[in-house]
Amino acid sequence: MIEHQTIENWLRKRAYLTPNRVAIKFQNESITFHQLEERATIVAKQLAFCGIRKGTFVALLMKNHPDTVYMIHALQMIGCPTVLLNHRLSPEELSWQIKDANCQFVITENPFIDWLENVDSRIIYSKDEVFDSPSKEIPLQDYFQLTDTCSIMYTSGTTGYPKGVVQTYGNHWWSATGSVLNLGLHEKDAWIAAVPIFHISGYSILMRSVIYGIPVLLFERFDEKQINQELINGSATIISVVSAMLSRLLEDLGTEKYHSNFRCMLLGGGPASLSLLEKCKDKGIPVFQTYGMTETSSQIVTLSPEDSLLKLGSAGKPLFPSSIKIVKDGKEVGSNVEGEIVVKGPNVTPGYLNRKKANEESFKDGWFYTGDIGYLDREGYLYVLDRRSDLIISGGENIYPAEVENVILSHPSVKEAGVVGIEDSKWGQVPCACIVLKEPLDLNELKVYCEKKLAKYKVPKKFITVEELPRNASNKLLRRELKKWFQ
Amino acid sequence: MIEHQTIENWLRKRAYLTPNRVAIKFQNESITFHQLEERATIVAKQLAFCGIRKGTFVALLMKNHPDTVYMIHALQMIGCPTVLLNHRLSPEELSWQIKDANCQFVITENPFIDWLENVDSRIIYSKDEVFDSPSKEIPLQDYFQLTDTCSIMYTSGTTGYPKGVVQTYGNHWWSATGSVLNLGLHEKDAWIAAVPIFHISGYSILMRSVIYGIPVLLFERFDEKQINQELINGSATIISVVSAMLSRLLEDLGTEKYHSNFRCMLLGGGPASLSLLEKCKDKGIPVFQTYGMTETSSQIVTLSPEDSLLKLGSAGKPLFPSSIKIVKDGKEVGSNVEGEIVVKGPNVTPGYLNRKKANEESFKDGWFYTGDIGYLDREGYLYVLDRRSDLIISGGENIYPAEVENVILSHPSVKEAGVVGIEDSKWGQVPCACIVLKEPLDLNELKVYCEKKLAKYKVPKKFITVEELPRNASNKLLRRELKKWFQ
Repeated sequence: MIEHQTIENWLRKRAYLTPNRVAIKFQNESITFHQLEERATIVAKQLAFCGIRKGTFVALLMKNHPDTVYMIHALQMIGCPTVLLNHRLSPEELSWQIKDANCQFVITENPFIDWLENVDSRIIYSKDEVFDSPSKEIPLQDYFQLTDTCSIMYTSGTTGYPKGVVQTYGNHWWSATGSVLNLGLHEKDAWIAAVPIFHISGYSILMRSVIYGIPVLLFERFDEKQINQELINGSATIISVVSAMLSRLLEDLGTEKYHSNFRCMLLGGGPASLSLLEKCKDKGIPVFQTYGMTETSSQIVTLSPEDSLLKLGSAGKPLFPSSIKIVKDGKEVGSNVEGEIVVKGPNVTPGYLNRKKANEESFKDGWFYTGDIGYLDREGYLYVLDRRSDLIISGGENIYPAEVENVILSHPSVKEAGVVGIEDSKWGQVPCACIVLKEPLDLNELKVYCEKKLAKYKVPKKFITVEELPRNASNKLLRRELKKWFQ
Repeated sequence: MIEHQTIENWLRKRAYLTPNRVAIKFQNESITFHQLEERATIVAKQLAFCGIRKGTFVALLMKNHPDTVYMIHALQMIGCPTVLLNHRLSPEELSWQIKDANCQFVITENPFIDWLENVDSRIIYSKDEVFDSPSKEIPLQDYFQLTDTCSIMYTSGTTGYPKGVVQTYGNHWWSATGSVLNLGLHEKDAWIAAVPIFHISGYSILMRSVIYGIPVLLFERFDEKQINQELINGSATIISVVSAMLSRLLEDLGTEKYHSNFRCMLLGGGPASLSLLEKCKDKGIPVFQTYGMTETSSQIVTLSPEDSLLKLGSAGKPLFPSSIKIVKDGKEVGSNVEGEIVVKGPNVTPGYLNRKKANEESFKDGWFYTGDIGYLDREGYLYVLDRRSDLIISGGENIYPAEVENVILSHPSVKEAGVVGIEDSKWGQVPCACIVLKEPLDLNELKVYCEKKLAKYKVPKKFITVEELPRNASNKLLRRELKKWFQ
């Protein structure tokens, strides 16, 4: 009797199955699966020369670029859990994550290399140093163990300290196959990745590309003009976007139309306004709303093709291998009752890295408690009312108020702080801070203080000072009240 | 941390996800997934009233019909390993398989019910008896354990005694997802099942239908006129055929053309002549040759879309989750060297039911030794030279000479017997027997004797008597020599 917990090294398998199909398009460059596998194998041996071995935790701080894709696959080939670092974070935040995951190595590139000065006793390589290294022959992974850790991505929470989300090879595999059973797979499919590949939204496109055998059209950054061009000329069939991107695409598109090849605008990363969805419907743009997070290795709930124009505002139903329920006061509730969104499935993380307590809190009987609020309608379609009540989503990036508040509170002149997300036409939401001071303070100084410690997008766009923060009887901050103060 | 070895009851999940899509088309009837699930649930409760419980081994002897599909899903809902019986077998063969699998129950229909008279101490129900039963509430399977036995199908071997091939829920799941990564999945897909659903070729279409959410166009029997009609009018996009069916389709098609919707003629069940493949190529028919067997839960090696017209004669490359190698004298050999085809993957059976010795012989280090002969070309495409050297494939049905020889030898007047497959323009091959007699015997009497004990298609079409069978020094029958005697 055979145990099936492994899968052949997927890049190698793909390169064997369809060597001449295009794997990556980037600017004017096209890379086939054969070339990608060949390049990743060389890089794996160069990384080996640098001292990286199976099981070594490696942090990656790189932009959207084919080199980053080579690096990601090379690390999978060696069998290294890879910590994907967000290059929008501050040096202090990066340093914290690198230490928290206990990465022995960091691989990065200019200009980020200077940010890592203070990350002591780690070995830091620029990508060029790796690419200039000699090779060392080491055993590469013929098979991936589905339960092995593939990637780690940090996400914050109510505590204000980010947690590393473990994503296994199995998580990525089941995410890709779960998605294909909903969205289908056409011979001419090509997926645009203009979202960061250090986020699960981008990383998962790279995995799907290899598992499906389709090209990823990789962009260093989101550029609505270039992307609209691809969608108009029919060279891409699917794109992952957040609502801020969708707005920009629509605005730039004007009266033009997308090619009939284009079949899926996969819209995730937070709520979208009904007016935006209706505008898309009017233009015949096939928007598939989706709900997912780092912990679910991208989508877990997505609209199906036949519902994409009928169920505006809903995120749809779970992917085939995944399950969903709504829990209120510890009990599963029926349709049309609001509660916490609770999910299960082989694409859900096995847990947070070295966070026993958080794991105990978030996982119960095999279900993951997302902290987000929503309800299921009678037919079982999910409506997400609020990402976890305090979560701010700004241009697709998650901002946890507690994390920003912790930084503000660390300033000696600050007594209390409350951070909330305020609607913004460009970014969806932006963080704003309300503070109570111990002593007079120039608010600009406070802003600069935050900029040193936080990623730019997390720094409050507005600071106001008040006598007292709105709290309830048990002293809990009333964020809804706070929001009104900014409007 | 969560263990992922289960999947939600797939029919129930599909009915929740896309209730209004068509699941089955049969004659003028259309059944949605919602209706299929509702009906299967009712039947499950009726089966429960009849005494069937989780873990009960149930044999199913039924034709291609929606009722059979209800029964299959109802048995999955209860959690019963289901033995799919081939209604072309003789009563004696059926009885043997029912006993071998130790089925407590047999479910059948007219006219097969009379064949089961001698199957003692089993409880036999006709489908009408089940459908007329009251219901009993029992717990149904919310989740399928991927390692649980779903279906059992008998296949013979060199010993002459059929063995039950265990197919788990996981085998069917991975088979379906492995196939979709190669063939893709379109919104308008619809799969014709005109092959028997008691065979893996048909049963696997039913599972794909539920997992993909696409209709199966079910036919009681293969009828080239009706099927060509569906392929010409574009209501089906994929069909599974064996080469005898493909020949009949081509002949009937004449100068007409298939609809552009039609995208895959999945050709399995043994070798196809190059002239047949070239005829298809000339007519622009997208033939995907495939190699698979009961033990691999249908396809394991299949041509990819871009190769279907380029690599005539090859069965292609393994499905994404599966692996293949060629072994000769106990060692893996390189390209262009003939040897035994050895496979591995999560779609491969965990083993034969209660056959310790056969399992030890067929499985080594997680690889399954097929007994078939073939080679891989330089690019890794499989060419199947011979199904296991003695296997006869007649109209898609496997015939194992040893099984037929055992029956002939059981006749008191026969001393020796050798059975081989002889080319036949209609069936691909037909079995023919060469015998050495102990005493004079009317060969017609021998034929009647065989007809009592064997399925019709296994009964030799020709008997000849000789003085001696061709054998080598170690007394092994030389089947190739024998073949020449019939030509």
